[in-house]
Amino acid sequence: MDKLPVNHMQLDRLVLDWMAEVRTYILKEIQRPIIVNTKSNMRDLVTNLDQNVEKIYIEKIKQYDPNAQILSEEGFGDEITDLTGPVWIIDPIDGTMNFIKQRDEYASMLAYFYDGQAQGAWIMDVVKNEIVHGGPFQKVWLNQNLMEPPVERSLEQSLLSFSGIHLLYDHFQYQTMARAALGYRVYGSAGISFIRLLKGQLGGFTSVLKPWDFAAGLILCQALGLQVKTLDGQTVNVLSSNVILAAQSLVATDIKMLTNTSSNL
Amino acid sequence: MDKLPVNHMQLDRLVLDWMAEVRTYILKEIQRPIIVNTKSNMRDLVTNLDQNVEKIYIEKIKQYDPNAQILSEEGFGDEITDLTGPVWIIDPIDGTMNFIKQRDEYASMLAYFYDGQAQGAWIMDVVKNEIVHGGPFQKVWLNQNLMEPPVERSLEQSLLSFSGIHLLYDHFQYQTMARAALGYRVYGSAGISFIRLLKGQLGGFTSVLKPWDFAAGLILCQALGLQVKTLDGQTVNVLSSNVILAAQSLVATDIKMLTNTSSNL
Repeated sequence: MDKLPVNHMQLDRLVLDWMAEVRTYILKEIQRPIIVNTKSNMRDLVTNLDQNVEKIYIEKIKQYDPNAQILSEEGFGDEITDLTGPVWIIDPIDGTMNFIKQRDEYASMLAYFYDGQAQGAWIMDVVKNEIVHGGPFQKVWLNQNLMEPPVERSLEQSLLSFSGIHLLYDHFQYQTMARAALGYRVYGSAGISFIRLLKGQLGGFTSVLKPWDFAAGLILCQALGLQVKTLDGQTVNVLSSNVILAAQSLVATDIKMLTNTSSNL
Repeated sequence: MDKLPVNHMQLDRLVLDWMAEVRTYILKEIQRPIIVNTKSNMRDLVTNLDQNVEKIYIEKIKQYDPNAQILSEEGFGDEITDLTGPVWIIDPIDGTMNFIKQRDEYASMLAYFYDGQAQGAWIMDVVKNEIVHGGPFQKVWLNQNLMEPPVERSLEQSLLSFSGIHLLYDHFQYQTMARAALGYRVYGSAGISFIRLLKGQLGGFTSVLKPWDFAAGLILCQALGLQVKTLDGQTVNVLSSNVILAAQSLVATDIKMLTNTSSNL
């Protein structure tokens, strides 16, 4: 049956093993002092653990498939210009500020494409030990439980999750959306927001995201029937930064009508 | 030694038993359909479970002390005009929107005063099964573990938690505070925010709160050396609605300087 270059269920179990190992590593190392460095600005942080976890994943991926191209947040992967062949996208620790300040509500994410086609994705809430995983061929799972598409609600009956900084400065009409929603949340982690969206706890999530922030969420949301597009309704370019809206389709429609109307005022 | 009208450790253990029973009740009942009604507006909700949990607490308190006065969110308690004698303040389910929409990140809270003096408080994160409890005589505990006062950071090194609606409309200079902080979060529950503040995951939390929203947080924060005042620096009136700032003292000082400066611009 499976003519694709991977056995999806087998690969899924293999990556779940990698993630269990990464989780044990993080929870052990987090007991010791963490070395924090800034990247582009004082709120853009990297720790020695982000870097070490990335190296663990890269080693495992290269062992599994020496030909794989790897796009990764902390720069130990490859320079990637297209999605030909096997491509992995890694976010070792998503929500680094939560990781440093809260030791809670951070995620670890992997996404796998072949010739640009989604093959599998994994988002782990490290502290809760919750992993949403799967893809278009193997369905979507919360740990060992099959997930169902969430019940659709309208925007005014839904909670939205935003990037805090863009909401605060009202970029992309975020404050208009927040006022129209039932309520909104700011969690400080794309991975945590994607998990909540997939579980039906949120109706939508929007933020400016780099490939490693959204790749796994994109695959899992689409496999579960949720919509992931740029905020202006375009197909997401997996290799670049995007203003992403991941949402139930009813919420996405309501947001589109709302922001179009507001633009014309 | 203990000349006060209660043995605090004994009472603490008793109330922990009440909370364990309430937790079991909520997690069982939440499997069934929940009846939701609106109160003052479409975002002010009450469920049959809020009401039932309140009745459970009231029955237990009345059994423990028939003379106790009870101030409670859903109106099954007493009309209270002063803090004479034993007074209990109940929030059966705090974060009702999270409770309804997420089945996660909601709290149950109790606070106990005698002649206006704090005696004990309990905040339970129902899903995580985390209870912060204690008071001025019995120290502050996270489940069975003694809590230490959090390490003090400045505002620009701290995360703040806000009431979403007041941040969105920039009431009380909240957007100015959010811009000056390292980052901010919106969780949709005072109880969950207080727990994170007590654990040192946040530097401060500010919102417009009713007595049942803040009474337990007030007692626990003060017992752990955190500051709880109105946003303009006044002592909190336990029997009325207040704009509350609960924060590490360094963060409170930074916020005071910031908002004073901004007002003079």
